[in-house]
Amino acid sequence: MFQGEVAWIAVDWGTSNLRAYIMSANGEVLAQVNSTKGMGSLNSDQFELALIELISDYLCDDFITPVIACGMVGAKQGWKEAGYISVPAEPPKSTKFTQPNVNDPRIAVYILPGMSQSMPADVMRGEETQISGYLAQNPNFNGSICLPGTHTKWVQISAGEVVSFRTFMTGELFNIISKHSVLRHSVDEGWDEEAFIESVSDGMMNANMLTNNLFGLRASSLLEGLQPTNATAKLSGMLIGLELAGAKGFWLGNQVVIIGGNKIMDHYQAALTQQGVMPIRANADEMVLVGLVASYFELKKE
Amino acid sequence: MFQGEVAWIAVDWGTSNLRAYIMSANGEVLAQVNSTKGMGSLNSDQFELALIELISDYLCDDFITPVIACGMVGAKQGWKEAGYISVPAEPPKSTKFTQPNVNDPRIAVYILPGMSQSMPADVMRGEETQISGYLAQNPNFNGSICLPGTHTKWVQISAGEVVSFRTFMTGELFNIISKHSVLRHSVDEGWDEEAFIESVSDGMMNANMLTNNLFGLRASSLLEGLQPTNATAKLSGMLIGLELAGAKGFWLGNQVVIIGGNKIMDHYQAALTQQGVMPIRANADEMVLVGLVASYFELKKE
Repeated sequence: MFQGEVAWIAVDWGTSNLRAYIMSANGEVLAQVNSTKGMGSLNSDQFELALIELISDYLCDDFITPVIACGMVGAKQGWKEAGYISVPAEPPKSTKFTQPNVNDPRIAVYILPGMSQSMPADVMRGEETQISGYLAQNPNFNGSICLPGTHTKWVQISAGEVVSFRTFMTGELFNIISKHSVLRHSVDEGWDEEAFIESVSDGMMNANMLTNNLFGLRASSLLEGLQPTNATAKLSGMLIGLELAGAKGFWLGNQVVIIGGNKIMDHYQAALTQQGVMPIRANADEMVLVGLVASYFELKKE
Repeated sequence: MFQGEVAWIAVDWGTSNLRAYIMSANGEVLAQVNSTKGMGSLNSDQFELALIELISDYLCDDFITPVIACGMVGAKQGWKEAGYISVPAEPPKSTKFTQPNVNDPRIAVYILPGMSQSMPADVMRGEETQISGYLAQNPNFNGSICLPGTHTKWVQISAGEVVSFRTFMTGELFNIISKHSVLRHSVDEGWDEEAFIESVSDGMMNANMLTNNLFGLRASSLLEGLQPTNATAKLSGMLIGLELAGAKGFWLGNQVVIIGGNKIMDHYQAALTQQGVMPIRANADEMVLVGLVASYFELKKE
């Protein structure tokens, strides 16, 4: 398919998913293919096969197709460890690619490194490429970027560089509390925006009371019939409120960009708007792709 | 066994365990038997059989043996819901026992209620009997009782009554973070007392940064080779420190009693001692029994 048109392949390879974009020489997407063969389900010797299965239709025998990948594929438990660039630094593009050995002669694989910080110790892997994409489109941006998710990142950007960042385990705490704690009996898949907003304020102001307020959701559901939809929004609000209290240095008085999926961006936007911050939004999948395209053009220059 | 001597049976029936004490008329323990048939593993029609299996050797055909039980056996998902006594109130003894119907003519079962609070909403079930035991032995105690565990309780006692209390999900958060979050790769079964104490202080002072500091353990283990034993103690310290910040009103300037198992009491004692509090210790299993004995003597008076 697309014979002669396929110039390279962009790959966003996270813990749970593998997404490949079949790309033209000028950075257009010719096709997109996905699989659930994320890093978390593969041993190091299974990555090449998982990739080839997904993209072999787009490879030719007489051309070595470059594959540029970012994300957990470059973790210690990934295909080949791709290391970290220490901040302050520009988000990595072509510099310091890691190339795993491949058996298939039709591909050459380039894995982007993550970024790390020593004081305090912190790491990111995958988000640096979303940031790279945003900065490729907005080269003069100065301010903070929030990348909400399992491990939400708050990132300070100045003069095209990642100056510092902090990771908050907000999404993961929400998930494990909802699934594995006594609160699993008190939450559901619903949402109550008003309860969420109220709870964000409370979470910001009463960080000390977090673990008490968590149990309070259970007690309220036992004693007062607190509805699961309400409890879910409150749980999320408490955790995002706690994060906003800790990340105040990033958002207070700064231009803020949120990069994420639509639903989680809605929640963060509502929480930040209440604090007087008017965040700009950018879609995470789009930003990863723009970042990978920027890396491809850097690679071509070399 | 102990024919003619068995006057009643004391039962501590929690989520995971069922403990029965075979008792003489004057409150001595003749024997103790345990099973893992906790409330969490039983449907409401399976409680009687689980109990009879454990105690039938000690029952006689010509005497109805009273069985006095406390704990999650009285929860909504238990044998029969035993309700709550609202604070402020003395911890329940014989008042408001709930009696489930039984098929076996040799027993009569009395389940103690829990305690509840409306502002803020909170509940306890099982701890009230430990408190009752402590107050039976120390009727003039005024101060705070800390009952550390999955859901740690801080309880204000005045003139023999539970005035108010707060539950912190400290133990449960430690468990689910250790088992189900990314930190499962960074912790083990070990302990480092110095790291714990340092982390308690940090957790108390930097509540806002909790979810960031949690991820920091992962980053430190990736970047700096933080040892799992060290990470485990730090994780515990962060969560107990956060709790102590939230529970300050209970321990600051008050006499504090800790009721628990030895290992968890060691940790709380060390954390509180660092704050200038010299807690008194009492064993949780002993206090439950003393509380059940006090209930038995109340029942006999009726």
